[in-house]
This record gives sequence, structure tokens and C-alpha cells, in this order.
Amino acid sequence: MKATARACSNIALIKYWGNRNDALRLPANPSISFNLADLFTATRVVFDPALQEDEVVIDEQPASPEAARRVSAHLDLVQANRPRAQVISSNNFPMGAGIASSASAFAALTVAACAALRLPKPEAELSALARRGSGSASRSVPGGIVAWRDASAWTIAAPDHWPLVDVIGVVAAGHKKVGSTEGHALAGTSPLQAARVADAERRFGLCLRAIETRDFGLLADVIEQDALMMHGVMMTSDPSLMYWLPGTLAILHAVREMRAAGVPVAFTIDAGPNVHCICEADAVRDVVAALDALQGVQSTLVSGIGGPAQVILPQSAG
Amino acid sequence: MKATARACSNIALIKYWGNRNDALRLPANPSISFNLADLFTATRVVFDPALQEDEVVIDEQPASPEAARRVSAHLDLVQANRPRAQVISSNNFPMGAGIASSASAFAALTVAACAALRLPKPEAELSALARRGSGSASRSVPGGIVAWRDASAWTIAAPDHWPLVDVIGVVAAGHKKVGSTEGHALAGTSPLQAARVADAERRFGLCLRAIETRDFGLLADVIEQDALMMHGVMMTSDPSLMYWLPGTLAILHAVREMRAAGVPVAFTIDAGPNVHCICEADAVRDVVAALDALQGVQSTLVSGIGGPAQVILPQSAG
Repeated sequence: MKATARACSNIALIKYWGNRNDALRLPANPSISFNLADLFTATRVVFDPALQEDEVVIDEQPASPEAARRVSAHLDLVQANRPRAQVISSNNFPMGAGIASSASAFAALTVAACAALRLPKPEAELSALARRGSGSASRSVPGGIVAWRDASAWTIAAPDHWPLVDVIGVVAAGHKKVGSTEGHALAGTSPLQAARVADAERRFGLCLRAIETRDFGLLADVIEQDALMMHGVMMTSDPSLMYWLPGTLAILHAVREMRAAGVPVAFTIDAGPNVHCICEADAVRDVVAALDALQGVQSTLVSGIGGPAQVILPQSAG
Repeated sequence: MKATARACSNIALIKYWGNRNDALRLPANPSISFNLADLFTATRVVFDPALQEDEVVIDEQPASPEAARRVSAHLDLVQANRPRAQVISSNNFPMGAGIASSASAFAALTVAACAALRLPKPEAELSALARRGSGSASRSVPGGIVAWRDASAWTIAAPDHWPLVDVIGVVAAGHKKVGSTEGHALAGTSPLQAARVADAERRFGLCLRAIETRDFGLLADVIEQDALMMHGVMMTSDPSLMYWLPGTLAILHAVREMRAAGVPVAFTIDAGPNVHCICEADAVRDVVAALDALQGVQSTLVSGIGGPAQVILPQSAG
């Protein structure tokens, strides 16, 4: 009754922001992301009827009561009337670097729990289960470049179809004040959210085409516009969510200057101040050097495209 | 056949961005502003049939051919088949401080030209004429706090109704790359502009109510949301207009921190990187001190609410 799984974080190219059903985490609009090979969570789940209560350890610390409750509730979804569990989860990326970890965390937890309970499930079901813990976790179950529209996400391109790289400019390492679950619930308070959602199929289609044809210019235009639309919604929601910092703007301008000079790089920004610079592999060195030279950039993280969530230690081992 | 007029610049609380008719500069949505008493343009117009061609001098320099053409075309609108003119215009605010000067410039030019031509016109007609030169110039003709919806702008409150102050944090002093006339024409390319316009009556109504009742909290929420909606549209237009700089974000966060601590201050941002901190009179000292302490802020400019555009030297003098 134990297993360990590993899942990558992912970076959205077409953003998920707002749900059509908050309880089920069914997204307001379709999204596209790719898994980040070098930013992942490994989670071990041991079901043990002898335990007094669930035990949850994250990055070698007992989880906060809120995080522990969210993990327990997720295990209840995987199987009702399950035995109590010990969950030990570790992220290989710096704690509190402002990089969303709930995607990789709930994907790894879902895959590990199903393996430990000997519940073999197809990828689509695992993705749908992960979604219930964190919407974007649905996209960390399949590998490569991934799309998500309804219950579950699916691979639209293998990692080697177009070996894009994410160079993350870390501007602030603290935890964000407003978590994503709360943020998604605020999306509808912005007068701009309905227009963002209504236009989402157009952006989704353009991004699919950019990926299919490996058209970096098209990709750059659509992912930057998509990210800016999401932040336009965030800033104008009630209360207003202003995730950007001075260093964020420094990177946005640097990326546009680099692209104007011919470097294949474009930005996207999640619900935080850090900027993800999406580029082609041969631009990585220039992009890292440019970010390192900017005031307000604390560090950079680099990752190519990763594979699916998977069991790394089966029931019998570990 | 000569006269000199003075008109204040103005700062919009509910922004004008995009036209329902670009040629006529009829705005896509209603707006509200107040005149800036201490930032003004003085313009002398001398009609003289003996001149070979129009002569336009701005801040002691011959105007660029483009600016001169715009001035000549505006004088043609004031009166067809007019005599040639000498126009000498001066701004009292720092040249190239990134503070919009077209509003005060076209208001002063309109009022001076009508006086020189002995064309007495009611304020509404002067406002409508000024609008043809620059949309926001319509709002620099009436005094105090001003609203604009269709052909011309009108005063909604005298300067002493609520003595608000604008503390401008100057982040960059250069001229903007994309001028406002071009920017307005791009507004419709953003997938968010229609939603911004559709919601404008709500914001306009809230701002009117805030002014009527001198409710600073209400004013702060609606003007910040309105400015962020405009910048959301600008950033997501095609091409994308990214006016903000790192210092812009530094001021936005500082303003929100001050307000959270009880200081009556709120931000608004025009088509540029500088931030207008709207505050009550007794907060000015704190706001100036806070801005001066920020990295990226080059200087501050302070102004209360100003009066209408007016002739300062009549036909007989000057």
C-alpha cells in the first residue's frame, strides 16, 4: 500500500484563470502548457490503517493544517473510506521561489495514491483526478506540450517536437499573498474577464497553430497577449491583484528588446512577479545573460520540456 | 487680429481611450478629469495676411513639420480661408517630462484663435473645437472638475468643491514612442476594449458619485480600476503598448501601501510611465516624501485643481 511518483511543474502558454465551476475546478477557458522537466515534485504515499491520522510532510517540514487538510481531502476523492496515509512530498525547485508548485504536487500525489491503492487508471482519469486538487495539476499528468479544456488534459506534442526552454527570471522569492484558488474565484469580479474568456478560443487556436508549425513569431505574439490579458483581469478584479514588481517590468522590456533584435524569446507571467522567458534552445545563453544583468532579478532557473507524471518506486519497493 | 490664451493640462480620473469616430475625435466612452492649475500652456496667435506661411514656435523652438501641420489644420477648422498666422506656444511644465501637453495646447490655441478672430463663442463650442485638435483638450476648456461624453465637456464641480491634488511621480522624461492619436486608433485591436467601453457608464457613475459625496475610498477604487483597465487594453492591443517602467510599479505599490495605512491617495496613469497620485491636500507632504524615496522616481510635480481656459491678453494688447 505504498508508492512514489514524480510529476513536473508546468508553464501555461495560454492561461487558465477562473472556473466555470469552482467546486469541480472546471476551467472558464481552454489552456495550453508545457511540463518543466527540471522543476518537479516527488511524492511518496504510504497507506497504513495503523496511523492515528494522516501525516503530511512537505519539503521536510510538517505541512500547515490548511495544506494537510487539502491533501487529505484529495486522498478522500481518490478513494472514499481509504486507510489513513503518510504523505512525504519534496520539490526539487527552491522553496518559496514563487514558482507554482500545486500543479506538480497534486499530479504526483494523485499518481502515487492510485498506484499505492492499486487502482490502475488511464491517463485521462488521473488528469481529471489531479484537476480536483488544483486545476493546473491536470496539465502535469500528460507529458510534453499539453492542452486542457474540460475534465482532463491531453498531450498535443511530444517534448522533442519543438524543444522550447523556459528561462525563469526570479524577481521575488516570497509566497504570494493571494493564492491561486482564491484568485480564480475573484476572476469574475473583473469587468474584463468575460471578454478574456470569450476570446480564449481564438488565442487557443493561434497557439495550437504556432506549436504545430513551430512559428515562434506567432507563438510570441499570442502568449504575451494572453498573459497580459490575464494580468489585466487580475489587476482590475475586486480586490485588485497586482502581482507585478519593478523587476517584472524590467524583464518584459528586456524580452521585447531582445526579440526586436532577432532573439527568439517571449514572456509569460503566472500569478506572481516572476517572468517566464520562453525561448528556443539556442537562445538560452543570451537570455540568461540578459536577465542576470537586470536590476531586480535575483536568479534564473532554466528548464526544457518534461514528460508525464509517473510512478518512480512501485508498491513493492520504497 | 491677435490674442493670447492660457489653458491648464488635465488629469483624467475616468480615462478616454479610443474613439467612436476617429476623424471627429468623438470618444468611445465618457470621461472625467480635473484641470491642473500649475501645469499650463500659454499660446499667442497673431493673424497676419502679410505672412508667407504659418509660423509655429513651441517652447522657443520652431515646431516640427508634423506639429506645425497639426496647428495649421486646427486653425483652418476655427475659420476657413483665414489669414496666415504666427503661433507662439509655451508650456510651464518641463518639456519632455512625459506629461501630456496636447490637451492644454489645443485648448489654449482654440481660445486664442477665436479671440484673435473676434469670434465670440460659448464655452461648449470652444470645447468642441478644441476636441477636434486633441480629444482631451475638450476637457481643458471648462474649469474645475470636468466631464466629457459627446461633442463638448462641461464643469461638474468647481475647484473648491473638493480640493484634490495631483502629485506626479516622474519616472521617465522622454517623449513616448507611440503618440496618443495613434494609440486611440489602436484601442479597438485589443480583445478587451469593447468590455472596457461597455463598463464605462458604471465607472463614470461611480466617479460622479464619489466626487459629489467627496468619498475618497470610492474615488480610489474606481479611478485605479479605470486606469488599470485602460492599460490592460493598451498592453493587449496589436501592437502591444507597454507604457509602464519599473519605477511605475514601485509607485503603484507605494500608493497602495500608503492608502492601506490610512493616507487618502490613489493612482492613475496616462499613456506613459509616470504615475499621477491623486490625494487630498493634507496628504501631499507624505506623498511627495514617499515618492522621492523610491528608486526610479526622477522628480515630482504637484498641482491643485485649475480653472477654465481663458484669454490673458486681449486683441488690443500684446
